[in-house]
Amino acid sequence: MNELELIDSFLAPFELTREGCRFPASSGVLVGPGDDCAQLVPSRGKRLIATTDAALDGVHFELGRSRPEDAGWKALAMNLSDLAAAGATPRWFLCSIGIPTVGMQTISPKTIARSFAEGMAPLAKQSGCALVGGNVTRALQWSLTITALGEAKKPLSRAGAKPGDRLILVGELGAAALGLQRLQAMSSRELVAFYKHSRSPRKAAPGKGERDPVWAQLRPEPQLEAGQLAAAFASAAIDVSDGLLQDLGHLCRRSACSARLACASLPRSLAVREAEAQGAKRGDHPYTLSLAGGEEYALLLAVPPRRVAKLLARLKTAKIAAHTVGELTPRSTKAPIALWHRDRAIPLPARLGHDHLAR
Amino acid sequence: MNELELIDSFLAPFELTREGCRFPASSGVLVGPGDDCAQLVPSRGKRLIATTDAALDGVHFELGRSRPEDAGWKALAMNLSDLAAAGATPRWFLCSIGIPTVGMQTISPKTIARSFAEGMAPLAKQSGCALVGGNVTRALQWSLTITALGEAKKPLSRAGAKPGDRLILVGELGAAALGLQRLQAMSSRELVAFYKHSRSPRKAAPGKGERDPVWAQLRPEPQLEAGQLAAAFASAAIDVSDGLLQDLGHLCRRSACSARLACASLPRSLAVREAEAQGAKRGDHPYTLSLAGGEEYALLLAVPPRRVAKLLARLKTAKIAAHTVGELTPRSTKAPIALWHRDRAIPLPARLGHDHLAR
Repeated sequence: MNELELIDSFLAPFELTREGCRFPASSGVLVGPGDDCAQLVPSRGKRLIATTDAALDGVHFELGRSRPEDAGWKALAMNLSDLAAAGATPRWFLCSIGIPTVGMQTISPKTIARSFAEGMAPLAKQSGCALVGGNVTRALQWSLTITALGEAKKPLSRAGAKPGDRLILVGELGAAALGLQRLQAMSSRELVAFYKHSRSPRKAAPGKGERDPVWAQLRPEPQLEAGQLAAAFASAAIDVSDGLLQDLGHLCRRSACSARLACASLPRSLAVREAEAQGAKRGDHPYTLSLAGGEEYALLLAVPPRRVAKLLARLKTAKIAAHTVGELTPRSTKAPIALWHRDRAIPLPARLGHDHLAR
Repeated sequence: MNELELIDSFLAPFELTREGCRFPASSGVLVGPGDDCAQLVPSRGKRLIATTDAALDGVHFELGRSRPEDAGWKALAMNLSDLAAAGATPRWFLCSIGIPTVGMQTISPKTIARSFAEGMAPLAKQSGCALVGGNVTRALQWSLTITALGEAKKPLSRAGAKPGDRLILVGELGAAALGLQRLQAMSSRELVAFYKHSRSPRKAAPGKGERDPVWAQLRPEPQLEAGQLAAAFASAAIDVSDGLLQDLGHLCRRSACSARLACASLPRSLAVREAEAQGAKRGDHPYTLSLAGGEEYALLLAVPPRRVAKLLARLKTAKIAAHTVGELTPRSTKAPIALWHRDRAIPLPARLGHDHLAR
C-alpha cells in the first residue's frame, strides 16, 4: 500500500480522482483534489466562513466500537455544525488524514480510508459541500482533521446577543451522550447485532417512536437549514458540541450577558428522560445528560423577543423542531448561568461540559 | 492545565486572545479565533486558494531533536509553500493541534504549545497570513494540522505546461535532506551546542559562506515572492516538498508531458555537493540528495521559452536565486523523466522521493 493508492481509495466514494476532476460550475471549484492547492470562486458580496475540527480514533470515535463510515460522517458533521452556527451555506472542505502504519491491522488502511469516505460522501453531497483538498500522513492513530468553508451574507457569531433575547434550541439534548454510554457498555456480540439489525441510521426504526440514542452519537445531524433560516432573525448562535452549559457560557461571555435556563423546557427524548430520572435516583443532577452531555450538535440561538414568533413559524414550516429554553439576562459575575426547574432555582451540575484535553 | 489555558498560551505569540480580537481592516478578518467560525472578507475578482498540510511529532519533526519553535515554523512554511506554488498571496490560516496528555512530559503542554506559536507567529506576520481559527484535541502525539488560505488573480497549478517549456527552479536542492541526516546523527551534547551556538536561523553564520543545512531542514523558507512574481509568466508550478523527481513527475502527469533535467544545472550548496560526491564513492546515485531529498520547499516552474528571460530578470531584480534546470518534452510513457549529466543520459536513482506512509 502506498500513499497514492490510499488517496485514490479515499477519493472514490466522492466520485473524484487525483488526475484532474471536473466539478460543475455551480460548485465554484476550478481546481480540486490532486493539486498543491484548490482554486475556488467565492460568491460576490458574501463573507467566507471557515472552521476546523479534528476527529481522532480513541478520542472522538473508536474503530473497535464504531464503523469507519460512522467516523467519517461524524468528522464532517462536527465541522458542518460550526458552519450551521454561523448561518452559513457549506461550500468546500479539505480533509487531512492521519494513518497508523504499524501495529496489528486486520483491515488494510486503504479499506478503512475508503470506508471513512463512504460515510463522509453522502453528508458532503446532501449539504452541498465539495471535497477540494487534503493530506495524508502516517501517524500513531487514525485521525480526520477537516477544514470546512462556507459562505453567508450576514453570518452569526457568539457575540451580539442582548439581555432579554430568548434562547431557542434546535435539535435535542443528551441523546448523543447517552448513546456513547450505551455504545461503550456493549459487548462485542451486542455490537455486531446492533450494526446488523439497527435500521437506517437517520430515522427511527419502524414501530419505535425514537431514533436509538447510539445513532445520535454515531451520526449527528448538523442543523444547517435551521442555521441558515435563523441568520436573518438571531442575534447570536453557537452549536452545542461540548455540553449546553459550557457552550451557552461561551455565548454569554462573548455577548457580555448572563442567562437563565428553564430545565423543564429542554428538549429531551424519552430515553434521555428515563436515563436522567434513573441517574437522579443515584444522586446525579437530574439534567446531567441534557445540560452537560455534549456532541449533540444542536443549535443554540439567541433571538430578540420581537422576532421569536416569526422564526419559530419559519422553523415549523420547514419541519424543524425548536424550543424556547430560556433567556439572556444582564451580566452577573456571581451567577453567569441560572437554572430553573419550574418555579424554583436549582444548582448547576458539577461538570458543565467537555474539556478536549481531559480524559 | 485545561483546554482554554492551552489555547490562550498558543494565541499569545500572535498577540491574540480568545475573547474577541481586533484585526486591522486590511486583514479581511471580521471574526477570528475564539468563535465557532472565522468570518472573512474575500477580495473581489480573486480566486480563493486553499491547501492543508500536517506536521506530526516523530514524522515531520522530532521534539527530542528540534525545538517546538522550529516545528511551528515548519508546519506553517509547508502550507505557505503550497500557496507559493499557486502564485497566491497568503491571507489566513487555521491550525488544529493534537496534544499528548499522557506519558512523561518534562515540559508542560502549555509551554510547548506556546513555543510552537513562537516559531509560527513571525512567519505568519512576515507573510501577511493571519491566524483565524483552530482546534485542540488530546492525541497520541503532538501534531499541527494547518489549512492555509490565499488569493490570486491568475493562480498556477500543476497542469498547463507544454513541451518546450523551460523548467526553472527557485531555491536550492538537497540541503534539507542533508540537514536531516546531520540532525539525526547528532548526540545530545552536539544538539545542545548546535542550538546554543548556531546563529540566527535565517542567515549564514558570519564568516561562513552557507547556511548550515540543518537550518534548511528546521526552517524552510517558502518561496512566496517568487511564486507571486511567476504567476504572470509560468504555465505550471509545483513546490518541491517530496523530492524533485517525484514532484516533477506530478507536474508532468497533470500537464501530459515528459521532462529532461540537466543534473549539472541543479542548484546545490557546497555542503550538498560534497555529501553527494562522498555518497557517489560508496556507490550512491551522484545526485541522490538533490533529486530525491525532499522538504526543500523550492519552487519548480514551467515557463514558455519566450517568457523565460523576462521572468529571470524579474527574479534577479528581486534578488531571488533561480536556475534553468531542464525542459518539458512530449509525453513519453517509457521515460517520463530523462536525466542528463552534461552530454550523456544517466539513470534515475532507485528512490524518486518521499512516500508519506513509508517509514
